[in-house]
Parts: sequence; structure tokens; C-alpha cells
Amino acid sequence: MCSIGLNVPPGLTITTEACAQYTNNGGKFPEGLWEEILLGLQVVESEMGCKFGDPTNPLLLSVRSGAAISMPGMMDTILNLGLNDDSMKTIAARSGDRFALDAYRRFLDMFGDVVFGIKHALFEAEIQAVKETKGVKHDVELVSVELEEVVERYKQVYKRAGLTFPQDPYHQLKVATKAVFDSWQSPRARKYRSLQGISGLAGTAVNIQAMVFGNYDDKSSSGVCFTRNPSTGEAKFYGEYLPNAQGEDVVAGIRSPLPILELENMLPEAYKDLVHNCQLLEQHYKDMQDIEFTVQSGQLYMLQCRSGKRTGQAALKIAVDMVDERLIDIPRAIMAVEARHLDQLLHPQFEDEKADSYQSAVRGRGLPASPGAAVGQVVFTAARAEDFKVAGKPCILVRTETSPEDVGGLHVAEGVLTARGGMTSHAAVVARGWGKPCVAGCNELWVDEANHTAKLNEHHVLLKEGDWISINGTTGEVLVGKQPLTAARLTGDLGRFMEWVDQHRRLRVFTNADTPKDALAARRNGAEGIGLVRTEHMFFTSEDRIAAVRRMIVAQDTNARKEALQLILPFQRSDFEGIFKAMDGLPVTIRLLDPPLHEFLPEGDVAQISNALAATSPGVSSADIAATIAHLVEVNPMLGFRGCRLGITYPEITEMQVRAIFEAALNIAAEHTNKDNTIVPHPDIMIPLVGTPEELINQVSLVRKVANDVMEEHGGESVEYRVGTMIEVPRAALVADKIAQHADFFSFGTNDLTQMTFGYSRDDAGKFLPQYLSQSILEADPFEILDQQGVGQLIKMATERGRSTKPGLKVGICGEHGGEPSSVKFFHKVGLDYVSCSPFRVPIARLAAAQAAVEEKMTEDG
Amino acid sequence: MCSIGLNVPPGLTITTEACAQYTNNGGKFPEGLWEEILLGLQVVESEMGCKFGDPTNPLLLSVRSGAAISMPGMMDTILNLGLNDDSMKTIAARSGDRFALDAYRRFLDMFGDVVFGIKHALFEAEIQAVKETKGVKHDVELVSVELEEVVERYKQVYKRAGLTFPQDPYHQLKVATKAVFDSWQSPRARKYRSLQGISGLAGTAVNIQAMVFGNYDDKSSSGVCFTRNPSTGEAKFYGEYLPNAQGEDVVAGIRSPLPILELENMLPEAYKDLVHNCQLLEQHYKDMQDIEFTVQSGQLYMLQCRSGKRTGQAALKIAVDMVDERLIDIPRAIMAVEARHLDQLLHPQFEDEKADSYQSAVRGRGLPASPGAAVGQVVFTAARAEDFKVAGKPCILVRTETSPEDVGGLHVAEGVLTARGGMTSHAAVVARGWGKPCVAGCNELWVDEANHTAKLNEHHVLLKEGDWISINGTTGEVLVGKQPLTAARLTGDLGRFMEWVDQHRRLRVFTNADTPKDALAARRNGAEGIGLVRTEHMFFTSEDRIAAVRRMIVAQDTNARKEALQLILPFQRSDFEGIFKAMDGLPVTIRLLDPPLHEFLPEGDVAQISNALAATSPGVSSADIAATIAHLVEVNPMLGFRGCRLGITYPEITEMQVRAIFEAALNIAAEHTNKDNTIVPHPDIMIPLVGTPEELINQVSLVRKVANDVMEEHGGESVEYRVGTMIEVPRAALVADKIAQHADFFSFGTNDLTQMTFGYSRDDAGKFLPQYLSQSILEADPFEILDQQGVGQLIKMATERGRSTKPGLKVGICGEHGGEPSSVKFFHKVGLDYVSCSPFRVPIARLAAAQAAVEEKMTEDG
Repeated sequence: MCSIGLNVPPGLTITTEACAQYTNNGGKFPEGLWEEILLGLQVVESEMGCKFGDPTNPLLLSVRSGAAISMPGMMDTILNLGLNDDSMKTIAARSGDRFALDAYRRFLDMFGDVVFGIKHALFEAEIQAVKETKGVKHDVELVSVELEEVVERYKQVYKRAGLTFPQDPYHQLKVATKAVFDSWQSPRARKYRSLQGISGLAGTAVNIQAMVFGNYDDKSSSGVCFTRNPSTGEAKFYGEYLPNAQGEDVVAGIRSPLPILELENMLPEAYKDLVHNCQLLEQHYKDMQDIEFTVQSGQLYMLQCRSGKRTGQAALKIAVDMVDERLIDIPRAIMAVEARHLDQLLHPQFEDEKADSYQSAVRGRGLPASPGAAVGQVVFTAARAEDFKVAGKPCILVRTETSPEDVGGLHVAEGVLTARGGMTSHAAVVARGWGKPCVAGCNELWVDEANHTAKLNEHHVLLKEGDWISINGTTGEVLVGKQPLTAARLTGDLGRFMEWVDQHRRLRVFTNADTPKDALAARRNGAEGIGLVRTEHMFFTSEDRIAAVRRMIVAQDTNARKEALQLILPFQRSDFEGIFKAMDGLPVTIRLLDPPLHEFLPEGDVAQISNALAATSPGVSSADIAATIAHLVEVNPMLGFRGCRLGITYPEITEMQVRAIFEAALNIAAEHTNKDNTIVPHPDIMIPLVGTPEELINQVSLVRKVANDVMEEHGGESVEYRVGTMIEVPRAALVADKIAQHADFFSFGTNDLTQMTFGYSRDDAGKFLPQYLSQSILEADPFEILDQQGVGQLIKMATERGRSTKPGLKVGICGEHGGEPSSVKFFHKVGLDYVSCSPFRVPIARLAAAQAAVEEKMTEDG
Repeated sequence: MCSIGLNVPPGLTITTEACAQYTNNGGKFPEGLWEEILLGLQVVESEMGCKFGDPTNPLLLSVRSGAAISMPGMMDTILNLGLNDDSMKTIAARSGDRFALDAYRRFLDMFGDVVFGIKHALFEAEIQAVKETKGVKHDVELVSVELEEVVERYKQVYKRAGLTFPQDPYHQLKVATKAVFDSWQSPRARKYRSLQGISGLAGTAVNIQAMVFGNYDDKSSSGVCFTRNPSTGEAKFYGEYLPNAQGEDVVAGIRSPLPILELENMLPEAYKDLVHNCQLLEQHYKDMQDIEFTVQSGQLYMLQCRSGKRTGQAALKIAVDMVDERLIDIPRAIMAVEARHLDQLLHPQFEDEKADSYQSAVRGRGLPASPGAAVGQVVFTAARAEDFKVAGKPCILVRTETSPEDVGGLHVAEGVLTARGGMTSHAAVVARGWGKPCVAGCNELWVDEANHTAKLNEHHVLLKEGDWISINGTTGEVLVGKQPLTAARLTGDLGRFMEWVDQHRRLRVFTNADTPKDALAARRNGAEGIGLVRTEHMFFTSEDRIAAVRRMIVAQDTNARKEALQLILPFQRSDFEGIFKAMDGLPVTIRLLDPPLHEFLPEGDVAQISNALAATSPGVSSADIAATIAHLVEVNPMLGFRGCRLGITYPEITEMQVRAIFEAALNIAAEHTNKDNTIVPHPDIMIPLVGTPEELINQVSLVRKVANDVMEEHGGESVEYRVGTMIEVPRAALVADKIAQHADFFSFGTNDLTQMTFGYSRDDAGKFLPQYLSQSILEADPFEILDQQGVGQLIKMATERGRSTKPGLKVGICGEHGGEPSSVKFFHKVGLDYVSCSPFRVPIARLAAAQAAVEEKMTEDG
């Protein structure tokens, strides 16, 4: 909580360290903790003028998680703690039966759920039964006598579960605190943190606070608000509240909350105070705030504030607006937009929302709870969503409302559609956090969860599992069928923001691209060069190409191999011409043939394949080919006959590829020689899988020889080029000082380097990696997020050693970590010159690079 | 050459550096070299009183390799250089036609062969034709007029090859020197060096010396001798010579040389001088010397001396004798016996040479040229020997005589049998160098090389390729069929020597053993513990074991897996009991289950296998099993679901194995509790394939828990044990400081560490490793000889880092490099505590460890 003079109920905080000690202690309070709590309580008691556990003048408490991160609905909260049969009566006498009974039944429900694990639904069924008997719809309509029955029924729920509700307030406090501690390690909380990539936190803090009551009377209410719109970023006060309710009612999505603006009419003083406080808090934290408040009998209390979760669109708009408002400077704005925000902004959009085909497909409307376009197949449970993910099928999770148990399914779904709940409901908050499109509170939607169907009632649409729908989280529209999508554009606020980003970063950002089309797309996204052209990807683009490649593979001697390579040469040359043209003036880093040859053979019956290949390979028998194929089979292809091992054993392959590169470069330069239209190719040739200096020496000298030959054949025209090496074998990193003497540049292949450093085959790690992640043996999947301790150590070592013998050596990375923000920051820190990533990740890498530079500057500036 | 006042023909030496410069220069003399040679020649001319290239007073030269290492028959030599038609006449006028013509025809032959690559056989055919016409058997019987015809025919050989013999002596000298330089890089010389593991030498030196003539007259001769017997080590002067001959005749094996002792009768003065000189040389070098000499007209000239190649038996006897003679001290004796010598001494011997079955199989006798027993199938060419090797069939190379082209075949054969050639013939020298049994000069043997058959004539035995024979290189006997072999014993001189070794080493030597039998064998060989028990090897030793293991693998849930593990437990326990008993009091390091589970499945048709397994796995259907098998298939099993990844995913496997270990330890201790018969088990439990501290923490806590459980079940009896980890994943080496905090010991698995550090799959590297070795991209196969630069760096790093957080951490190695001498020396140097190797390599590891300690001491002592 902040301390700028707001009206906050007094309380005390138990630190995260105490939680960690508790966990390590096997679920026992650390020594002295209970005594400290009791001391803290005395202070609260004296401020509030009442006593905890005193039935004649009771102090009630709220106990809730004060986790450093927002984990919507994950962490347990217990309100109205301290109530028992006696103190309830005292409160009833003072504040009315209805209020006291309402607080008591809430406490019985939350306490039973959180401390004893009694399902909330069991309590819900009881109150529902009472409401039905009395013919009322909402809790607020229940009168005292009915609430009395609810309390009685709730106690029966305890009994039926073989439990007794503890009347002793101190016992209540102790077990409630433990329950909050425990909730940090609950499977759903762990899953949430693991999905969010959150690690390194010791535990949760616990806030024990004096209760204030939003359900005290008609001048009471509870609400949640944001200083700006968390969905669009618009600089308008935004939020929801419920009159005569406690906080949990707002987020639970059971009653539909009211827009915050209506509070002005209902409780103008409290509203004025709230707006003022919210402005103060935003000014203080220089960030959009997510605030919980309660009004008790017209008096505003601020309960909680933290930086608000927001969509990518909101993050960008807030950052840009705050710079314009001079609330923050540009570096701070750069830090305020997270990579995942940018990722959302770059997500596809609906192609044309005005088209008839779009408009005529709309079948429902809900709240635009999290913007963006999502297209997928309907599923009705989180488990089925995960099944669909495994099967590679995009899905939309359709629920009456979501609960914390659904996070796994929410995470894998393309988007979420709910029938109930507002803009701050669980589904909305989580979806916004993940940048997943969400349409919430779609009243026309009726979900029959038992039968796994749903109806969009007004349009008489029946949805079954597997049906395609589209949702528009920006407008709240629900559409049947698959609506066409299109790529996002870097214009407007985003364009302006990316300019700031580029002004602040040091790392250059290249792209991995194998075609002119990809190269152009990446250039549009800001790529400053190509860090990886996988020459072999060109082999598969047509039937005659792959046929020539296969002929090369089954060649029985060097001459036959050379003949086949002659057929491949023109294809490679024309591809390189296109790429050089697309990347005019920028470096194009081309990796020579890398994968094991058997990857180019068709799958299936060997005899059949051999016959087919023999038909197109003059002078080679089917039996010879079968023998060659048998010889190519490998036990561990990842560690087999591939990379430069191919080019050293069959130098004619390297020769052909290098010839294609230089012929392409010279051709393209010659075609565009007039002054207005010069195209400058910059080939950087990269030798894969080098582990010893001798391998590199062998291939570099071959590259230089062929390059000279081709340049001589072209009348002495020259092309500037460099020859470098991948560093992707651990040994290469260890002897990088020796390898650097023969390399113009290094490029880390972090995919292979990770495989070999860990000894994990990416294709096979699925058998144990999930287990390793769930048991916290690994903090993250090292193929997604660079393992800085192990693999990163090799990268740092190789960079330092390489530059020790070749100062100024250009060093980059072209593995998939090149587009992963935390990894990019690491690459900045160890002094790499560039990262290379897939075209659509380029803006994210640019942002991460800028954030790394800003962080570094901040650290330097202290 | 030495400089202790012996009679040595004057000459000059061109350094190895000049050779290296020449090679790097693309076969051009380095600047100034030719001028230096001419200057040096002037000195020789003034000493000899004659002039090179002066037809009226010619100086003749020998040009030969002065390589730092002996490469028998590999390096070129040209004698009688400077002869041409004119100088030949001058010499004929002065020393007689016969001598001059004999020298000239020798020169034409050697020069043509070495400089122009004209096959020696073409010259040999011409002289053979002349000898046949004249009806003489030996060269020495040819008279002047016949030699004149030989010279003429030799010149025709040049003409037919389209070449002209150069008459200019200076041109002869230049091209001869170049030819010797070139011979350093010849394929056969490179192959020899690679087979011998010789690397790091720049090139060959070249000696240009004034000729002295062993073919000058009847008081002339040429010979080769050893200061002690190179075959047995006996301290007796030993050698061979040929009267009226030049040196090449002796080693060529064309004329059968005479024993050196006969020289005493023929040339008593020269013999006396020779014996004296030899004694001087041995005293000076403190080693057995291999000496070439020539007697010209009764005057002895010493041509060359170097430490002599010897068999293992000889090396041991010479070292022990020299200590007894006080010629050398024990550390020097330790250095004088090479690991490969010891290897030979440990080779199998014939079981009983006195048995009737042995005696009745003897069919021929030759010279005992290199001792030991060899059994194999007959092959007649080096190429076929290599084919047999590939096919895994042991062979004996049977040849009339061997030549340097045969080294590849010699290297892979079990032994060599030749019809011609003496104790210093090519076959004999090379075989002794490699410790391969050799019977040379078996006169009863007639080899029909064209038809690939041979006869042992007196016994009318016809040998065809593939027939089994046995040869006894110690006695010279040749036997038909496969004679039974038996292991060598560490007694006598060897026992004494090994005591010295043990007194001087610091590294402890453990063994890799999976059975009580292996453990006992290793203990007899001096093993001080077991460094690696591969628990899974026990799985294959009987049908019911492997059946239980397969049942465990196809188990469909944890309970079924536990049931199957219960069946395996008694097997493992009884095996461990046997091993603990065998290794009483010594550490037994047990590695928990390591290989991927699919390795335990039978090969073949999946449906068939599934049916068979279903029949023995209650409650599991064939379809379930087929699905499980399909799931177990891996793309890169080496980097897949194995090692501790198994034990973490299926903790019940670790539990069973640890239970078996501790039950065995407690049982065996309980069985032997009386004071005279106590058996103390020392289990060290080793977790395989650890890459992160968390993996180790997980498994160590499980091991300790099960250990405590079992000890409690055994009434609180305790067993001392340690829990450590393999370091075989590169990442483990990088984070060794963190891993060490949870480990009692480290054991490097250098096989896997090499695979992952290089990115070489041992199963697949055959596709490129041979090419890498022949192209010198790798100096040695890193799976045979530890890669000190790369893999070694990780070992050093991990040892240092491990001990930085856990001082005194026990560190060893259990990969196959543990028995490879140069690797063992490295492990000593980086401070390991022990090496572990296969039982039969234990003595070799002990020797290498002692040599490492002695070398270290010598370096410290300066």
C-alpha cells in the first residue's frame, strides 16, 4: 500500500520471507511470528477502538495475499474474520441483523473454502435453495430471517463434511494466515506462475487489515477501478462497483457490477474522493493503477493499489500519452511496454470488419473485455482446450464464467467467450494479462455445460464442440465461422514508439529468412540484415529441386554428385539473387548446408523409394540406392553426419553453394549498375557445426578459393564478403580464441548449443521436460528462454575468448532465442553485436534490446 | 648423431624447420637453404679430399631422413648420390669396374624409385633377368660385364617411363633432398604416424653425408645391431650384417643376413671397435641402442644410432636389468617401459606349449621376430586384412615379405608371418614396434601371391584365405588351427616393476566392472576399487531378468511398474552381494539406471514383440504395449529419456535400485560378522546424466531416504556410503560449483562428455571421423584419446569449480579414457583422485599414473 495520506484501514503485513520460512519449515510458523502478529493487532485495535476476539466489541479482519505480482483469483482472501456466534450477535445488536448475518454467511463460505477446502459450490447451492424458496433473485434481496437460515445451512455444510467451524477468533486467524501462505504453493498458483514465466519469488506476503464493510448499508459499496482504460489505454477513469456488496462480489462475476461513473450519482462525495485519490496514485507511481476500494456508509476506504494489468493496445497508448503529458520520459515509456504487449499489437486483425461477410456473421455481442481477433473451434472445458492444443487445433474457450481452475485452458485457447461477468471478471483480467482476445458477459449466450453445447439464443445458433467461431475482443462481437485475418501494421502510436526504441538500443536486430518474401516482411518490421539464411529450405520449394537434391544424395561417386549439384546450382543462384535484391545494402548471412542428408529423402518404404529415385538417377541401380539409404540412417542424427562435416567430406557441395552465392551477387550487382538503381549485395558466409579451428580453416579456404574463381570469371568484378562460423557445438565455445583467428564473425546457434550443452534432444525432451518444469527442476524450457547459467556461460566465454584473439570480432546469435525478450537482454549484457530472429519477432527483439540498454543506463546512473 | 669421438663419415644436417618451411612453401626450398647446403658441402669436400660433382675426383653422398622418430622403411634414403657416367668411370679406374658399376646400378635404382616414383620392382625384374641368363643367384656373384648390362637395362627403365636420368650431380642432390622432404608427407608416412599416434612434429631433418662403401671389397660390409636383444631384452649384443653390401640390402630382406657374431671372425678389428662403440653409446644414452654401421676395407664407420624399438618383454627386462646394473634409477626405469609394452606383456599366451595338441599342430618354424601368441585367419594382402578387421574377424597377415605399403594391414592383423627377411626385416621391426607377434623368414613357407594361397611345404599344408592358423612369435613356430589362449600373469620382473610403479603414482586406479568375476580379475590386476558398476548390464544375464525388465518398461501405470520392479529387486540385490564380497573393504561405485528404456526391448517386428510381451505382462494388452513401444522410440536416444531423467520421472526405479544396494550391503555384512571373516561393503551411489543441481538434489534426497528406510528395517545397522554424480553433460561441468554442494564425489563420464562436447554421436561418427583423421582435422580419435583442449578443459574447470565450493571433493573418471595412457597423464595433471578403466587396462593405467608423477617430479626438479 502507498502512504500518501489516503484513508486506508489500519493493518499489518507479514513479509514474503516469513512465508518462505514457513514453507521450508514444513508448514510451521517461523519462531516469533505469531507474537509479532499479536503485537501488530494491538496497534490496529487501538486505532479502531475495538478488540479482536472480544465478543462485546469485536474487531473484524480481512486476511489476504499481498503477493508482489497480481495473480487474479489465484491467491486466497478471507473477509470478516473474527466473527463467531457471539460477536455476530453483538454486531447485529449494533448494526442490524441483516448486515451481521450477511457478513457471517460470507465468512463461513470463504473460511470453509479457503481453510478447509470445502467447495464454494456447496455453499452456493444452499443460498440458491433459500433464494428459490423465497422467490428472490439476488443475495441483497434476502432478509434477516432468510439469511439466518443461510447461516444455519452453511454450518450444516461444515458438519456434512465432518468438520466443525472454529469459534475461536485467534484460531481462525492462525489457520487463515497459514491458508494464505499455503495458497502460494497451490498447484493452480504454480501453474499460473509457470505459464507467466514468473520465478525467483520466495512466497507471498500476507496483509491482515481491519475490515471495512461495503455491505454495511445502502450508502456502502465495493469496487475495482483503473486510472485509465486497461483495455484501450484511453485516459479515462474506468471501473465497476456493486452497491451493498463486499469486494469479492465484484470480481466473482455473480452479480453484474455497475459502471464506476454511476457511483457519482449514488455517492458523490465518495466518488470525488476516489477520483482524487486515483489521480494522486497515478502521479505517484507514474503508471496506470488498478485500485480496490470500499465505501462504508459514505466514507471511502482505499484497500489496494498496484500497477494495472493491461492489453498491448492499452500499454502502448498509456506509454505514449504519458510521455505527451510529460508524466514520464521516453526511457521510462520504453520500459512500460512489455514484449508481450508488443506481441499482442502485432497479432493478426480481422481483414475487414465492414465487409458484408463479416457483418452478416455476427450472432452475438458481449463486453469488449480484451481486444484482438480470435478464430477457433469451440470447446467448453479447460481440459478439452488443452487436448485441442496438443492436437494442433486452435480453439475458443466458451464458458458461463471462468474460475482460477481454468488457467491452463485459458492459456492455450485463442480467445475466451463468457456468458457472465464484467470487464473485471476473472476471464477478462486473465485474458487481458495474456493479451488474449476476450468477449465477456455475452448475455445472449447460454452455455449448457453438462451437455457440452451452447446457444446464442436470439439468433437460434446451437454451438457444439469443434464448431468454428470468431470473436472480436475489441468490439465484443461474436461471429460464426472462420473470419479471415490479416497482419498488423507498425504505424501511428506504434510507429512513433518504435522510433524511440530504435534510438535507445545498441544491439542490431537481424532476421532469419529463407525467401525474398520473408526478407521483405522482416525489413518492413525493421530488420537490419539477415542473420540466417538456411540454404536447405530452398531445396523443398519445388518438385524438380528436391529431385535434384535426392539425385545428389544417392550419387555413387564424386562425379555423379557433381553432376547432380550442377542441377541444383541454378535454383540456389536465383534464390540468392532474390534475397540480395530484397536486402540491398544490408548483410545477408548464409549458412551452408547443415542438416543430415537423410532429411531430404522421402519417408516410407525403402524399396519403393529406391525404385523411384533410380528412375530419375541415370546409371544408378535401385539396389545401390537402397544401400545408400541404409548407410545414411543414423542412430543420433543430431550428432551425426551434418553441418560442415558434409562440406569437408564432400567439398563439391560447399563449392556449388559458394559458387551460387557469388554468381548471384555478381549478377544482381551487374543488372543494377546505373546510378539511380544500384543494388549492393553483402554476403556473409557461415560455416555450420564447427567444433575445431581445423574444420573452419578447411572450409574458409575453400570458400575463398571459389569466391576468387567466380570473381575472376566475372572479369575481376568484386563483392565484399565475410566468412564466419556458427558457434553451436560446446567445444567451439571452449576453443573460441583459436577459432576466431580464422573467422570474420561468430553467430551462436543457440538451439543446437542448448541441445548439446544440456544433452537434450529437442525431438525427445517431451518425455521428461514437462515433468522437469512441473517439479521446478528447470525454471523454464531452455529452448524457449535461454539458459543463462549454462548455455549463457558458454556464449559469454566464447565472445570474450573470440575477441581476445580478434578484437572487434562481430558476434551475433541466430537461434530461436534471438526473439525472446529476456534472452535478448542477456545478449545485450554479454556484448553481442546483433540478434537474429524470425521476421514477426523483429519488433519484439528491437524493444527488448532497447529495454536492455535503458536498464543498463539506469544501473549506471544508480 | 652422437659426438663421443666415433668414426662417423662427415656430413651436414638440414633441420626439420627447413622441411616445414619447404612444405608450407608449396614444395620450394626456403630462401638461403641451397646456399647453406653448398657451404656445408665445401667442409665435407675438404675433409674427404674430393669434390662433389667433380668427375675426376668425385665425392659421393648419401641423402637420408634424419626424422626424430624411427619410421621403419617409411622415409626415403638415396645412396651413392653424385654418380653419373663420367664419375663412374673415374671410380672404376681407381677402385675397379665391379665396385663402380655396383654403386651406379644401386644409385639408378634408388634414385629412380625415390625421386621419380619408378617402382623398385621394375629394376628388380631387370637384374633378375640378367641373373637368370647368367645362372647366378645373388647380386654379389654378378661380374663387371654383367653389371654393365644391368646399368644399361636400368637406364632403359627410365626411358620406358618417359624419363631421363639426370647426369648433373647438383640437380641430383636438389631433387633427392626434395624427395626426402616430400616423403614426410607421403600417405604411407602419414598413416604410420597416425597409427602410432605421433603428432606435433614439423617435418623430417635430412642428413647429407659422405658415402662410405660396404660394397667396396671383401673386407667391407654393412650391418644393423642392437646393444641388447630387442625381442627378449637379454643383455647380449645382437645384430646382423651382410658382407660386400650396402645398408639397404640388410633391411630389404632380399639376401639373408649373417648373425653379427660372425663379423668377429671375418673382420676382428672392426668388430672389436663396433662392440666398444656400442657400449659407449648405451652408457651415454642410458638406453638400448639401434645402430647402423658400415665397414669399408676393414675400417668401421658408425652411420646412425637411436634408441631401439623393442618388444614389451624386452622393454621390461632392459628396464629392470639396467636398474640392477645401476645404469638407471627406478623413476627412469618407469619411464622406459611404455604403456604399449605393458599391453603386450598382458596379451594372452598359449595355454600350454608342451601339450600334445599344441606340438602336433606345428607345421613350420621361422625366426622368433616378435614374441607373443597370435591366432587368426590367413589373409595375403594388407587390404584383405583391413576387410577382415571391419568384419570383426581376427587375421594373420601372410606374406613373402612386407613393405611399407603394408602398414595398414600389419596394424590390424593379430600377427605376421613372412617367408623371407631376418630379425631386422621390415615385418620384424614394425611388428616389434607394435608388440604384434611375428614369425619372419619361415623358409618352409611358399606364398603364391597371385593365387592367394600358400604352402607350408615340408608338411604339404595348403593355406587359403580364411584358414585358421596360430603363430608363436616367442619360439618361431607356425601351427595350423586355433590354439587355446590364456591370460598373462603379473609375476617375476613384471611383478617387481609394478611394485615400483605403485610406489611412484599418486592417482588411484579403479576398474569398471559389472560382475563379481570382473571385479576379482581387476583386483588381481591391482584395482583399488570399482569406479563404475553399470547396473543395467545385470539385466541381460538371464531370460527371467530381461523378462522382468521388459515388464517394467511396458507397465501402464506406477503400480504395475512397481510390481515389475519387485521382480527385479532380488536379482540386483544378489548381484550387488557378489560384488561387495569381491571388493571387500574397497569402494564400489554404482551408477543408477542410465540407458534409454527402449534399449531393453528385443529387436524386430513390433506386433510380434508386443504379443510376446503381453503374454507375460498380466493385464496389459498387446495394443497397449505396441503403443508404449511406439512412444519409447526416440529421434536421438543419446540425448533423450535416459540417465537421471528416468529416475526423476519414475522415482520407483531409483527406489528399487537403492533398496537392492543397501539390502545387499547389510546382508553381506551380517553374513560375515565374526572377527576373522568381516566383509565391509563401501557403496558409492552415482547419479547419471546430471545437468542441473536440482536433478541431483532430487535423486540424492531419494537415495538417502531409501537408505535410511532400509537401515531402519535392518534394526538400525548402518552402512557407510556416499552419493555422487557423473559429470558427463557439458552443462554439469559449467555449473559444477553448484552441483558439488550436493555431491560427495564427481565421476567424469568422458564417453558422453566427448559426444556432447564435440556433438559427435559415437554410433554415427564413422561417416566422417576417418576423413577427419586422414585430413588432420583431428589429431586423434577423441573417443580413444581424450581431447585435452576441449573436453579436457571442461574436466579441469569442473574439478576446480567443484572443489571451490566443496574442498576435498573426490573426483575421478570412469569413461573409457581411464585406461588410455596420455589421457591418464592428463587426469593426473588436473588433480583427479582416481581413474577407472576396464579390468585388463588396470596395470596400464597404474603405469601411466606413475609416469605422470615421475614426469611431474622431473619438471619440478628442473
